Amino acid sequence: MNKGPLDGLRVIDLTRVLSGPFCTMILGDLGADIIKIEPPKGDPVRAQGTMTDGHSGYFAGFNRNKRSVVLNLYSDAGKSVLRRMLADADVLVENFRPGTLDKLGLTEAALKDMNPRLIVASINGYGSTGPYVDRPAFDFIAQAMSGFMGVNGEADGPPMRAAPPISDLVAGIYAAVGILGAVIGREKTGQGQTVEVAMVNGLLSLMAYISSEYFATQKVPQRTGNDHPLVYPYGLFRCADGQIAVANSHDQILQRFLDTLDLGWVMADPRYDTNSKRMAAREELRELIDSRMAGKSRDHWLQALNTAGVPCGIVQDLSQVVADPQIAAQDMVIETPWQDGPSLRVLGFPIKLGATPCTIRKPVPKLGGNTGNVLAELGYTPDEIAKLAEGGTVVLG
Amino acid sequence: MNKGPLDGLRVIDLTRVLSGPFCTMILGDLGADIIKIEPPKGDPVRAQGTMTDGHSGYFAGFNRNKRSVVLNLYSDAGKSVLRRMLADADVLVENFRPGTLDKLGLTEAALKDMNPRLIVASINGYGSTGPYVDRPAFDFIAQAMSGFMGVNGEADGPPMRAAPPISDLVAGIYAAVGILGAVIGREKTGQGQTVEVAMVNGLLSLMAYISSEYFATQKVPQRTGNDHPLVYPYGLFRCADGQIAVANSHDQILQRFLDTLDLGWVMADPRYDTNSKRMAAREELRELIDSRMAGKSRDHWLQALNTAGVPCGIVQDLSQVVADPQIAAQDMVIETPWQDGPSLRVLGFPIKLGATPCTIRKPVPKLGGNTGNVLAELGYTPDEIAKLAEGGTVVLG
Repeated sequence: MNKGPLDGLRVIDLTRVLSGPFCTMILGDLGADIIKIEPPKGDPVRAQGTMTDGHSGYFAGFNRNKRSVVLNLYSDAGKSVLRRMLADADVLVENFRPGTLDKLGLTEAALKDMNPRLIVASINGYGSTGPYVDRPAFDFIAQAMSGFMGVNGEADGPPMRAAPPISDLVAGIYAAVGILGAVIGREKTGQGQTVEVAMVNGLLSLMAYISSEYFATQKVPQRTGNDHPLVYPYGLFRCADGQIAVANSHDQILQRFLDTLDLGWVMADPRYDTNSKRMAAREELRELIDSRMAGKSRDHWLQALNTAGVPCGIVQDLSQVVADPQIAAQDMVIETPWQDGPSLRVLGFPIKLGATPCTIRKPVPKLGGNTGNVLAELGYTPDEIAKLAEGGTVVLG
Repeated sequence: MNKGPLDGLRVIDLTRVLSGPFCTMILGDLGADIIKIEPPKGDPVRAQGTMTDGHSGYFAGFNRNKRSVVLNLYSDAGKSVLRRMLADADVLVENFRPGTLDKLGLTEAALKDMNPRLIVASINGYGSTGPYVDRPAFDFIAQAMSGFMGVNGEADGPPMRAAPPISDLVAGIYAAVGILGAVIGREKTGQGQTVEVAMVNGLLSLMAYISSEYFATQKVPQRTGNDHPLVYPYGLFRCADGQIAVANSHDQILQRFLDTLDLGWVMADPRYDTNSKRMAAREELRELIDSRMAGKSRDHWLQALNTAGVPCGIVQDLSQVVADPQIAAQDMVIETPWQDGPSLRVLGFPIKLGATPCTIRKPVPKLGGNTGNVLAELGYTPDEIAKLAEGGTVVLG
């Protein structure tokens, strides 16, 4: 098994729940050594979601390729163990509310003093400066506040959140970028630095081309459901056995689409020969298109349109996605073992590296399953470890 | 001005439109030298969106911190200039359909031969292996095929896309992670490698906790609109002057929410004392809550609930986001100059680095605005450059 490009990068991971664990899982998938510090009760996600043999699939989905150490950070002895860990670590990642690290005695100055090479990454809701710094954050709220929800949904319906917690996850991926950037920068300066990503900022950054239109026109973008705001025909169309999504993003592709439907004449018809005429004649055109497509199956049209070079697909539910031969070919559903537990299905690796591919190098850790060996690596003797465990400072898994 | 942690990293950028330019902009924001190779007509996005003084805001939003070189890759002379660029570059990024690089003579073997340290990153729709490899891809289609659309939208409504092109953008961020990982790995091996991210895979990876429930239960996840599938009260509630989003993610927060509304008794009432009872009594509870909240303004509740530690916010439209004091405090709306053009507003940097923050180091380039100086850096003499320009191999901006 290859070691991954981040082999040797030691990450002390104080995060829990979603955004932080997603960030450190990405780093772990790439070969970093993720030491997940958990309180005695564990990351709350260990107890969430449906259990398989007593094991949370939700936890498995965010915590493969990590080692778990249970450490009571609210005790002086626990803080001292953490400081010893940080002394030769490369990265510290946390997703507490701003200020929590300070309360643990880990101010920026103290951390720098302890280890000037340490990269200290924080993921939070709104950022650590500004009027909302003390507000509690949550994915749903970040979707609302960032402008993201406001543009999603039917034209005559309410703003619509995305069901996946994308503000957490996007912030987690951005934090991985920032951390790796800081690691590369450190090669030149010898110095670590802070990295911060706020969920609202990360999600707002995805409004890129919608925001540029707003900046240019001062017109607030409206919801348009599944239709393209500026182009027609585009969207979902009805076949004999269900709908198909078609993205006729420009005239050349639209011509191919219409040709495939034997409607090639439309683009030359004076009623429909510009996009604005087609936008105005949406209902007519929709009927025309639906009447053609309704005669044949989705599979027929998928085949014919893809062959013609028209971007199209079906709206798959998760059972279809998981059964999709392309998803299988891309290894996007894999199994991960748990330490002393069952193997569970999880999603695969979206980043494909040719020479040192992501792989499961470490199982999903049981709570505290690596406390002993991590402490031993730090130089603690078996006696010292036993004493820390007796005092409740650490828990051996 | 600091140089950024990626200073000295030279990226040859063959990408256009969305996913690739977003990836390379992130790298450029962190200080990498992005050499954007454009065909004589330029990246099509230069002509898209509303123009300000003849300049596309859409293009500005994806192309600050880059240099533009116009190079005709379909000529032998153009290919030879590209090869000279690649000989001492660190990274090549492309978002063509799989196979296009091969057609340009840039097979994996040829590239390795040319420069074994080169990292070759590809962003595409479905990946470069598998049955769909030749299908054209597009954000809307990736949203449909990945399962993402299927979980978004009202319970009784159609599947709903997100309006921003998130499959492009998420793939772009992931590609940045993969590239930086490969750069770090190269420190140890001296060898570059390929990096690939497919839009469908990237978006599927965001289904993380939804997919783990599916894997554990085999139940296909359903759409639930803005409501939480498992928790109530949670969602949008009506105040005197509009709605407020509230995320009562667990009982402790719910108690704070109800206390703030003077409904603290609810949690102890035998009709509502478990989450399943509350789920069953949704309509009653919604009335109760709305009747309290309707008496006061959103600002009142925002203040009171945030103070109580309840995650809440309003569904902001873009004009509100841009005017939000928190967004201002986080510098999330900034100005970028164009080379020989106007300054335009664009979104700021979601990755905040303490020592070497992202900043605008290079303006949005005019088409071919850096052809001359990049060629000169490569060692071309003024005479040679003039000849290449005469023959149409390059265009000077």
